[in-house]
Order: sequence, then C-alpha cells, then structure tokens
Amino acid sequence: MLLIGITGVSDTGKTRLINQLITELNKRGYRVGCIKHCPRGFKFDPPDKDSFKFRKSGARGVVLSSPNEIGLIKKSTDENKLEDLAINHLSDCDFVLIEGYKRAKAVKKIELLRIGISEKPRIKDSIAIISNFLIKTKKPTFHPDDIKNIVNFLEKLSKGRDKMTRLKINEKTIPLNSFVKNALTNILLGFLSTLKIDEDRIYKVDIRLEA
Amino acid sequence: MLLIGITGVSDTGKTRLINQLITELNKRGYRVGCIKHCPRGFKFDPPDKDSFKFRKSGARGVVLSSPNEIGLIKKSTDENKLEDLAINHLSDCDFVLIEGYKRAKAVKKIELLRIGISEKPRIKDSIAIISNFLIKTKKPTFHPDDIKNIVNFLEKLSKGRDKMTRLKINEKTIPLNSFVKNALTNILLGFLSTLKIDEDRIYKVDIRLEA
Repeated sequence: MLLIGITGVSDTGKTRLINQLITELNKRGYRVGCIKHCPRGFKFDPPDKDSFKFRKSGARGVVLSSPNEIGLIKKSTDENKLEDLAINHLSDCDFVLIEGYKRAKAVKKIELLRIGISEKPRIKDSIAIISNFLIKTKKPTFHPDDIKNIVNFLEKLSKGRDKMTRLKINEKTIPLNSFVKNALTNILLGFLSTLKIDEDRIYKVDIRLEA
Repeated sequence: MLLIGITGVSDTGKTRLINQLITELNKRGYRVGCIKHCPRGFKFDPPDKDSFKFRKSGARGVVLSSPNEIGLIKKSTDENKLEDLAINHLSDCDFVLIEGYKRAKAVKKIELLRIGISEKPRIKDSIAIISNFLIKTKKPTFHPDDIKNIVNFLEKLSKGRDKMTRLKINEKTIPLNSFVKNALTNILLGFLSTLKIDEDRIYKVDIRLEA
C-alpha cells in the first residue's frame, strides 16, 4: 500500500486530479482508496436514523452493512493517524490518495499549484509539484493534464517504497526499528510456511490475537 | 471483543433495546460498537460530495476524517463477514451489538419477541430470549425492560468466550485450529516479551506485514 497526499490550497483542482488518478490507476489494475480531511466535520446520517441514535446512546462506532457497500461512522481516536486509517479501513487498496493533511509528515506529498490561484510552492517536503505553468524547481514537475506520467511516477514510487509493517499492542502502535521488523517478518513467514496455505505468494499478513 | 446478534421481526423493539444496552454497557465502562444489516442499502452522501465522486471514479473506499468522527463508505467484499467487519472497523470495542443478520452462524444471537407481534421463537440457535410475556423455553429469558440482568448475562458471556484470533493472508481469512492458534499466540507473545513494551498486560495484538 502506498499513501500519497495531494495537497494545495482551495481551487487548485485537488478533487478533479484525484478523480483522474483513480480512473487511470484503476485502468492499470490497481485498487484505490481515498482519505479526505474534513476539519469542519461531515454529515452522513440524519438524526432519525438508527446509526445516529446508536451513536447518541454512546456507541463508539456503527457499521452499516449492505450487499453493495459498507458504511461506518466512528469516534476519532488519537489524531486519526493516516497509516492507521488506511490499514484499518482500506487494507485491500494498493494506493491511498489523501486530500488535505498538508502537515502530515509520514506521508509523501505532491503539491498542486495553479496559475492565478497558488503560484508558489508552500510544502517544503513535497516530492513533486503539479502545476499548469512553468515553475523553477529541482523537484519532478507535471502538468495537471498529464495523468499518465503522474501515474507512472506513482507506480515507480510504489515499487521503491518501504514495506508497511505495523505492530499494535492493546490500542497503541509500537514503533519498530528495522531489526525488529525483520525478525518479526521472518518468524511469521517461517511459521506460516509450515501451514498449508493455498496462495502462490504471500504479500500481506494480518494477525489479530486476543491474549 | 464479544459479538452479539439482536434478532427479531420488525416492531419487536430491536433498536430501542440496543440503545438501552449501549447505555448500560457504557455505564459499566465498556466500549460498544454496532453493526446494522441494511439489505436494501443506505445513503450516506449526496452526489455533489467528493466522497461520492471519488467512489464514482472507481475508488473502492473513501474515508472522511474529522476531529470528532471518522466516516467510511466502502465496496462490500465477501459477504461482509461479521467478524471481519468488527475486527477491521470496531477493533477497539469490547462489545459489538448486531441488528439483523438472523442467519449469521458465527455469532451468538438473542431473539426478541413481543406480544401481538411475534410470539413464537424462530431462531433455533439463539442463546436467550427477550420477551414481554411469559414463554415456555429452557433458554434464559428476560423482560425487555430488565436491562441490568440482560447486561449481566452479556458480561458473563464475554468472560467465558473464546479468544478471537484471526489470520488473514493476502485478502483471505485462514481458518485456524486450536493447535495452530496456540502455537501462533505463544510464538508472538514470546517474541513480544523480548521487546520493551510499556503496557501492564497485553490483551490484544494486531500485526500487519507486507512481505
């Protein structure tokens, strides 16, 4: 899973760009999820719905399950860490495109500029810039209509990225150095190799234990 | 985590009962989540919202993240297995109350009856019956207003339940017999005991690896 932030001030075309990226990534066979930052909240259900009532009674989260879609409304925890949001709720996606969250450090960000609206890069740690005018920078730059090359760039990033490994104990995410990460991976893959698992290749393992 | 299904035909008072159970479980310090079966679908966002547009473009799932709440709309996979829904989306809850899903076998069910509406038990494998009239049965029965004793019953169930252990490889849940379950648990707890983890007691471990 690769998390990519699409940042930029209002009216630079973030939503349009994300829609186009989803379409192109889908065409290439990837599964895409999105995370959108809603600092002022969002409204999913009116007060007469059971999901609303359950939360009002004190439920931390309500899942609606229908034949086509799953819905969820849940209390925020921690600071809604992007990695946790992605792993918990979008675990089957290859790419997760994130709108907003320009301050998130854990995520690679692409900044969107637009002539007449936002002409100067503001995100120091962005890895690329998308703009509809010529800009002087050492970072890779793309025109917002050049979706194919932007997606080529994302594909390349995805191949070179670090494996995502997460250990949560009780409700805390435990930071892992690469020694522990490798030890844990090898112990588990070693153990799993003794089970008869009908998969050509193991690329993702999720384990949940209650102890 | 204990999953409990509250089943019963329309107008037996499922929603009201679930609301009261949430309140009482909260009072006793438990965290509660809900899953509601919506066979005819649900509507969370109108077509002018980004979350709708992203899905229309082909996103498998969209997470909205606000300071108070997280929202999610996602394509259904498999048959929305209740255990997977609970573990993926309500992992921090002690109890998950499920409305509907009367056919779910993996979940302990309580059947709700009501005089004049539904007077005969239909769920053979229910573990208790809640009814506002006297009923002849060997199963534990409760009056719908006797919330304290119903919650006592849930608490007892929760203490005696099997530990919930899940192994997912790629996107498949792998069934585990108790030998493998114990081996995996012991290997992991052994390994984790060598890390310095600042928790008094490990009661839940979540691991995600990309291999």
